[in-house]
Amino acid sequence: KADSGAESSSAGTHHDGDSGKYKETLYREEGKITYITLNRPQKFNSLTPTGYIELTDALESAAKNKTVATVITGAGKYFSSGNDLSNVAKAGIDKAAIKDIAEKSAVMLEKFVSAFIDHPKLLVGLVHGPCIGIAFTTMALYDVVYASDQATFHAPFTSLGLTPEGTSSYSFPKVMGPAKANEVLLLGKKLSAAEALECGFVTEVFPADTFEVETKRRLELLPKLAPISLKESKILIRSLDQAKLHKVNDLECKRLIGMWQGDECLSAAAKFLSRK
Amino acid sequence: KADSGAESSSAGTHHDGDSGKYKETLYREEGKITYITLNRPQKFNSLTPTGYIELTDALESAAKNKTVATVITGAGKYFSSGNDLSNVAKAGIDKAAIKDIAEKSAVMLEKFVSAFIDHPKLLVGLVHGPCIGIAFTTMALYDVVYASDQATFHAPFTSLGLTPEGTSSYSFPKVMGPAKANEVLLLGKKLSAAEALECGFVTEVFPADTFEVETKRRLELLPKLAPISLKESKILIRSLDQAKLHKVNDLECKRLIGMWQGDECLSAAAKFLSRK
Amino acid sequence: KADSGAESSSAGTHHDGDSGKYKETLYREEGKITYITLNRPQKFNSLTPTGYIELTDALESAAKNKTVATVITGAGKYFSSGNDLSNVAKAGIDKAAIKDIAEKSAVMLEKFVSAFIDHPKLLVGLVHGPCIGIAFTTMALYDVVYASDQATFHAPFTSLGLTPEGTSSYSFPKVMGPAKANEVLLLGKKLSAAEALECGFVTEVFPADTFEVETKRRLELLPKLAPISLKESKILIRSLDQAKLHKVNDLECKRLIGMWQGDECLSAAAKFLSRK
Repeated sequence: KADSGAESSSAGTHHDGDSGKYKETLYREEGKITYITLNRPQKFNSLTPTGYIELTDALESAAKNKTVATVITGAGKYFSSGNDLSNVAKAGIDKAAIKDIAEKSAVMLEKFVSAFIDHPKLLVGLVHGPCIGIAFTTMALYDVVYASDQATFHAPFTSLGLTPEGTSSYSFPKVMGPAKANEVLLLGKKLSAAEALECGFVTEVFPADTFEVETKRRLELLPKLAPISLKESKILIRSLDQAKLHKVNDLECKRLIGMWQGDECLSAAAKFLSRK
Repeated sequence: KADSGAESSSAGTHHDGDSGKYKETLYREEGKITYITLNRPQKFNSLTPTGYIELTDALESAAKNKTVATVITGAGKYFSSGNDLSNVAKAGIDKAAIKDIAEKSAVMLEKFVSAFIDHPKLLVGLVHGPCIGIAFTTMALYDVVYASDQATFHAPFTSLGLTPEGTSSYSFPKVMGPAKANEVLLLGKKLSAAEALECGFVTEVFPADTFEVETKRRLELLPKLAPISLKESKILIRSLDQAKLHKVNDLECKRLIGMWQGDECLSAAAKFLSRK
Repeated sequence: KADSGAESSSAGTHHDGDSGKYKETLYREEGKITYITLNRPQKFNSLTPTGYIELTDALESAAKNKTVATVITGAGKYFSSGNDLSNVAKAGIDKAAIKDIAEKSAVMLEKFVSAFIDHPKLLVGLVHGPCIGIAFTTMALYDVVYASDQATFHAPFTSLGLTPEGTSSYSFPKVMGPAKANEVLLLGKKLSAAEALECGFVTEVFPADTFEVETKRRLELLPKLAPISLKESKILIRSLDQAKLHKVNDLECKRLIGMWQGDECLSAAAKFLSRK
């Protein structure tokens, strides 16, 4: 705990209220807002199995507590670099081990994404830096996304031998329109904050040096909204494609089991590890 | 009648052809176009139960007559300030009376919104000023919206203790993308005309002083379109999500019955009336 | 063959690898990409029944071969002027003949559009000039569209007495938002390349004089993507509304059988031919 505190305090986040219940994630309830911070800055907040499980649990806690909104951010320079590939790669060349990891990862991933789909409160993303892979794809499930002009959004599936997850195969075309979504999902186009705003993915973009002030000001308004109205409205809007989102999540996770065991993904993971 | 004529002639609308059949609404058929004008400018064209019923009836008349397009606009400075809260508030503190009003309002609202969903002709909105609440939410059901740069769009559900109506919980995310739609529906963000254009809600925006000339020019083109083609194309496009829209309308109206009886809404309505 | 080669070489396209299997269409596989070129430049690449059948067949060939992407472009100044109306008009005033042509055209059109819906590979459009009617409407089924600033997009259904095809009654509102889609489909608004980019229809726009260089550079990147990942991702994304697209295609084609036999369409076709 002390370690992780040191790491992220160097990144300028506040931990005074941290619940201390997670290893790679900070969690605190303050005022009427739950703050969840991805807190492995030395690894760019990439998600290990522990990270997936903690964030899933944190979202479920936030769903049940008395706050009216949930805010997710990342400690350090990145929002999150996405899935931690060392987990995938550590299976080495043992095909049975790879298959086992793939199947377990799919179960974990589906639960993780479901926690975003079913989150009943206003879910706000604060993206101050790179946002990659699963961190990017699940962001279409947030209600509001504030980005700094230093944020970038990248989902390099066709470099990694993967297929879309986080419901992005459905949500990205819906949010950005197919022409832009396909560029992102199929061609691996990295979006700048300005491009993400332009295509409707992001709610607002602020200069990096006023990002904290501007987003703080917006978060301070949330407790002034009628809380039942806010929650019921969020739930109503989400209910209209919730079943579809779960179906897509299931489909995507099933497809990934095969992709993770494929040569394209294994060789991309091996290349990634050898770079380190 | 004479009164309402006087009110809106001061707002620069033309009534020579008014059918005289409504109290708060002007209705005329001219050339191949039906013009419907919300005409209670001294109350910013807020909708009373009479206004809801008249506009529903006017849309049904326009659906059946020989014109090819229906144009809706507002007399005076506002397009419409939305639902007239004095209706809700007059029930006072009598819980049974409130419940009764809520249930009847839901029936009336569902019929009103259905008249927009099922309208078989090209439906054009001319928005020269503020467009609020139910007037804004139903506007996603218009085919074409022309706005002046003085127009604004506002749906303050989470200030009023309400949940979205007019199918906006479905149509707004579809039209604007979720990031913008949630800002509008959940955070109560008021859109300028330029922002409404940017997010795809509005077809074109004109400077206030050329708005009348520019929209007149566009309306003059409508009778030149092949009328059967126009009607069949509109009906075809709408048919593809008509069932979904009715389902959403039903869901939204049902949810509102509870919201209207809730403390958040009642105290917002009381506050609104005491301001007067 | 020699003729068609002469025609399009004057338009600056390369035919060295043309398969020679079509009359109005060039087809070649080069590197990992299949190139299909609409090649009747003296008629602005309008689609005759032969053209429809050839392009359908070409897409099916490209689906089965070993390439990873399919690129469609047009020879000469136009991408395509759409349906060749001389076919419709040649039935003259014989009502039975018109009915027969209408019914056969609907079958042909549905197959043609289905080839786009079901195409399993990355489908790229290179649009360097006007793109009209069926060529425009089917373009919402491409994955990526690169346009020159000389490109325009036009679907004048309500001038021709027709209703939308190519799944545009569903895809255009989804891609552009209803306010823009209705302007295009119902009012016959012609989009500039910039407007098509703005509303999310087009992926990127380049100046006409760098269009070839810029698009070539982008196409060269495609073979570097993981091929299984690319194909599986495309198929996954499309699978999510494939059934809906086929249903819309069926509905649109059925509706057109009646429209093609209607007075509005017949008189528009007669007017078109008399202009020649």
